[in-house]
Amino acid sequence: MSRNIYLDNVSVEEAREKWQEALTIKATTEKIDIREATGRRLAKPVRAKLSTPSYYASAMDGIALSATDTVGATERTPVQLQEGKEYQLIDTGDPLPEEFDAVMMIEKVNQIKEGIVEIEESVAPGQNVRSVGESLVKGQLILTVGTKIGPYDIGLVLEGGVTEVTVYTQPQVDIIPTGSELIEPGRSPQPGQIIEYNSEVIKNLVLNWGGKVMQRDITPDKYEEIKEKIQQVTQESDLVAIIAGSSAGREDYTAQIVAELGEVVVHGVSIKPGGPVILGRIGDTPVIGLPGYPVASALNFRLFAQPILYQLAGLSTPETKEVKAILNKKLVSKLGFREFVRAKLVKLDNQIVAVPLARSSGVIGSLVEADGLVTISEYSEGIDKGSEVNVELLVNQSKPAETLMINGSNDHSLDLLKNKLAQQGVDLLTQPTNSLAGLTTLSRGESHLASINLLDSDGQYRQSLDRYFPTEDVKVVNLAYRQQGLIVTAGNPKNITGIADLVVNDLVFINRQQGSGARMLIDNQLAKLNIDSTKISGYQQVKQNDVTLATTIAQGGADVGVGTLVTAQVFDLDFIPLRKERIDLVIPNQYWTDTRIKELFKVICSSDFKAEINQLAGYDTSQTGQVLTDGPTSR
Amino acid sequence: MSRNIYLDNVSVEEAREKWQEALTIKATTEKIDIREATGRRLAKPVRAKLSTPSYYASAMDGIALSATDTVGATERTPVQLQEGKEYQLIDTGDPLPEEFDAVMMIEKVNQIKEGIVEIEESVAPGQNVRSVGESLVKGQLILTVGTKIGPYDIGLVLEGGVTEVTVYTQPQVDIIPTGSELIEPGRSPQPGQIIEYNSEVIKNLVLNWGGKVMQRDITPDKYEEIKEKIQQVTQESDLVAIIAGSSAGREDYTAQIVAELGEVVVHGVSIKPGGPVILGRIGDTPVIGLPGYPVASALNFRLFAQPILYQLAGLSTPETKEVKAILNKKLVSKLGFREFVRAKLVKLDNQIVAVPLARSSGVIGSLVEADGLVTISEYSEGIDKGSEVNVELLVNQSKPAETLMINGSNDHSLDLLKNKLAQQGVDLLTQPTNSLAGLTTLSRGESHLASINLLDSDGQYRQSLDRYFPTEDVKVVNLAYRQQGLIVTAGNPKNITGIADLVVNDLVFINRQQGSGARMLIDNQLAKLNIDSTKISGYQQVKQNDVTLATTIAQGGADVGVGTLVTAQVFDLDFIPLRKERIDLVIPNQYWTDTRIKELFKVICSSDFKAEINQLAGYDTSQTGQVLTDGPTSR
Repeated sequence: MSRNIYLDNVSVEEAREKWQEALTIKATTEKIDIREATGRRLAKPVRAKLSTPSYYASAMDGIALSATDTVGATERTPVQLQEGKEYQLIDTGDPLPEEFDAVMMIEKVNQIKEGIVEIEESVAPGQNVRSVGESLVKGQLILTVGTKIGPYDIGLVLEGGVTEVTVYTQPQVDIIPTGSELIEPGRSPQPGQIIEYNSEVIKNLVLNWGGKVMQRDITPDKYEEIKEKIQQVTQESDLVAIIAGSSAGREDYTAQIVAELGEVVVHGVSIKPGGPVILGRIGDTPVIGLPGYPVASALNFRLFAQPILYQLAGLSTPETKEVKAILNKKLVSKLGFREFVRAKLVKLDNQIVAVPLARSSGVIGSLVEADGLVTISEYSEGIDKGSEVNVELLVNQSKPAETLMINGSNDHSLDLLKNKLAQQGVDLLTQPTNSLAGLTTLSRGESHLASINLLDSDGQYRQSLDRYFPTEDVKVVNLAYRQQGLIVTAGNPKNITGIADLVVNDLVFINRQQGSGARMLIDNQLAKLNIDSTKISGYQQVKQNDVTLATTIAQGGADVGVGTLVTAQVFDLDFIPLRKERIDLVIPNQYWTDTRIKELFKVICSSDFKAEINQLAGYDTSQTGQVLTDGPTSR
Repeated sequence: MSRNIYLDNVSVEEAREKWQEALTIKATTEKIDIREATGRRLAKPVRAKLSTPSYYASAMDGIALSATDTVGATERTPVQLQEGKEYQLIDTGDPLPEEFDAVMMIEKVNQIKEGIVEIEESVAPGQNVRSVGESLVKGQLILTVGTKIGPYDIGLVLEGGVTEVTVYTQPQVDIIPTGSELIEPGRSPQPGQIIEYNSEVIKNLVLNWGGKVMQRDITPDKYEEIKEKIQQVTQESDLVAIIAGSSAGREDYTAQIVAELGEVVVHGVSIKPGGPVILGRIGDTPVIGLPGYPVASALNFRLFAQPILYQLAGLSTPETKEVKAILNKKLVSKLGFREFVRAKLVKLDNQIVAVPLARSSGVIGSLVEADGLVTISEYSEGIDKGSEVNVELLVNQSKPAETLMINGSNDHSLDLLKNKLAQQGVDLLTQPTNSLAGLTTLSRGESHLASINLLDSDGQYRQSLDRYFPTEDVKVVNLAYRQQGLIVTAGNPKNITGIADLVVNDLVFINRQQGSGARMLIDNQLAKLNIDSTKISGYQQVKQNDVTLATTIAQGGADVGVGTLVTAQVFDLDFIPLRKERIDLVIPNQYWTDTRIKELFKVICSSDFKAEINQLAGYDTSQTGQVLTDGPTSR
């Protein structure tokens, strides 16, 4: 094509170095009231302006007296003292009168009569007296440069008679989201429209790092408008982030505009997600052009802007924390690209396992779920399953020991379970595949439990379950029954009444993949009715879950498919019931006493959880929590 | 005495339990915009309101085409496609036109002429196409209850078409500082006056825990005023904290007022610091009365109010983190009281050592410096030196491996050093004692280095240094020379001219303790001049450092003492020079290659550091950084 479609492909390190060289970064400071300085970093040390206590003060409620007057006082030889002359009542913090040199605590003083007390032990000079400067001495260093100001620091500074401190100025980041396809949150997207949320993610990263943010309006993909906006904000800003338009598409203008107004230092870095990043400057202001994909946008901002923002705040970038874990899935990667794979950490069989999450640059959920990042080097084509990897922890990490991994058939009740477990401190990592995949994973020891819909409604076992667990080493717990049937176009315009209608000529069916319960159901029914599946238009077209199946029907891509009532309702589609289907959890005996599994079982058996499931259309909890104890082998 | 001076003495657990039983704590929730919800906790789960992508979208910049049209395309057998009919230009995120089912990336497309492109490889159906729901499916659980909302969460929620979320309401704490002796920060305290900063500490603890704060004005110790203030704020508040007046002193009204307006549940807990705490309620509002001592106030608030605030926010109190460490000092404690000792963690000789800090309840600096708390059980009279202890980490912890422990003679240059080292990531824990104590500690392996002023100005060794390190296993590094002399009352009203005047009759001298350089100087000079020390009034009175010595003189408690010029200046006192004195650092060879010591040596040798020292009156850096390599034994 005629446009410039090739970007640089430099390494992260080279890109950082080049950008750094092109920039002149200077941290600035400001004086503020210590009471407004929570979380800020000191740019100058703080010294005490006064000593505290600044006078000899009573450390107790009691009486001020002279130590010499108490010599020889015991229980058997008490000493009487006269108020005003030999003692004076004193409260904690009161200045010690000049004529006295010690304090006796009130609990040890016996009032004999008005103005006369008796004491039964002696005190030493200075006893229960706080000496001048006990807490702070004038001129003393209170806080060093670089201190991040916390609650106790504020107290200490105020105690030292100081109210104003010099802190690093918070760098201001201007964020400009661009794209004609973008709409503000709160509006309903039409096909081709996307809700703009990247700027909110970037904004909150900046706030987390201690910066300030100016979030600018969405600017459409119009060269002049974007240029004008960039020009307008650059002068007031410490760093400008332009979201989307950083690549070399027909409407990607950022690089050209930055080059015109200043300098593009790097355009394109050899990383995934998110190669097409722009690092540049306009005048002295660093400018970063971020890809529009949310994961790419966030990771690039983290890689390149975070160090600059920390420098602007007078700080070095905080070290990232790493843990070692065993990779539970082979990762194939492209040579020449450093890939950052989001991963969840799970404690499985006394090992910390890294479970790779969605690798697509468009799935921000992978960053939400992730505990950390696994890096695949640009010099490697991937990492083998079972390898030890370093996982760079992200802020929102949970504890591996609190995560339960479930694989298998997906169901709405699993979402309810996940939410309930979260309240008990257990993080349920769901990996929706299908029943057979769930059992395979479980039998390999790669998950804690499986969700399946392979059993008959009367609890009879399918061969498949038996194949994976030939011995009595698992328990099967019923989660719920759900209504399965045919999901059909809203209003059922083609008047479908049941399976037999699927062979009707103008009707397009959409199938589920092999191994799923829905596929077994349809194949079973077709066999019973003696219907040749090749006669069904669309039988070969499969979807990976009932939600994408329902979406296809809702968008007119098909007329009918097998799914659940609740999914049909979510998408406002019609539904023809076929049967009630069991959803079960398969739990190996070895995990039965695991505290996480115990919590899970407690939740499943709770009336609270059952009540929530019963709110789902077509669900039945009559057997929920029931354990099939006879094991899969007993037939 | 006639007033009630006896408090309860219940355990922490019993106090918590009693208070909990007396309270009815209910977390409330509110709906807010997710964009305002950073850091808040979800009270209800969030589900996607729409699927994203909501349409089949191009994942690349390129051309949309039909996979079937590309079959057989290779480098040797390229396929030509016609624009509009067989392909269409498409950008990332654009909806895929209905007639096409795949996208080829732009880099692989060769433009032959206007409207005609050539491709050299085939694509599969769906290639480079983001399918509906790839990122999120309608109805899917996005975030579970209890999620603390972070940057990526906000992105995900917005992507799911949701803008409003239900979060727990932030509990509001009303803080009432009481005390007639209190003054606002920014004012100069007169004797008997104290700057009020407890409320700032409590406020910032609440903010750290996610609450909101109403900070009320200082209320003097007047029964009616305090009562009125408490009544006034209780109704609007989720928790009221009344600072000071919680004990049983003459002007401690809190307990009586709370009892009148509601119920005092606990008055007095068997802990140190801070036994006299009040736990009560007025109506449904929890009320806590805190002791006025800053450490006691903060620790009590943490022990008792934090769990309540977390409950009010719908959360369980976060687990405290503990590390094991070796106690480096014997701690003696009172039986029947649980004591919380602030401690600094230091890595010393490959062990993590807990160094107890000031135990006084009045020294807030101990909380600033502390990495954590060592608990001494109420059933124990203390903990032996060398015992393994659990240290409960505080928020502001530093890393043990980054802390250098110095013990010995105090000097202003150590503050400068500490501040400079902080900028290099090294935390200098100074333990000002005196030169001999510094050497003792160092010789026992209980610190990394010592500061001494035991050498003659020409570098000759005193016997004392030699006694501690008989072999060549330490290096001595000069820190600076400082001007030492007689500190005298401002204006020198008694016309003191030198040591010989100390025997003058109406003159009061103040001494330093044995082992200090200043004491050695005076004793040395007295011997030279043949002056009998018993003739000097005040010779037996000693101060532990030159700052308390200067304070005593400034407050008229003495006329003269031995100290440094810079201290005299800090306290606006007059000064009579006696000699220039070396301040040296003694560093064992085993630590010479330690990275922290290397940083320290680098700082000492820097012109920057020397320039800062030279700003101190009477300091000389001509030898700063010079290493005496001949070792202490070679005479």
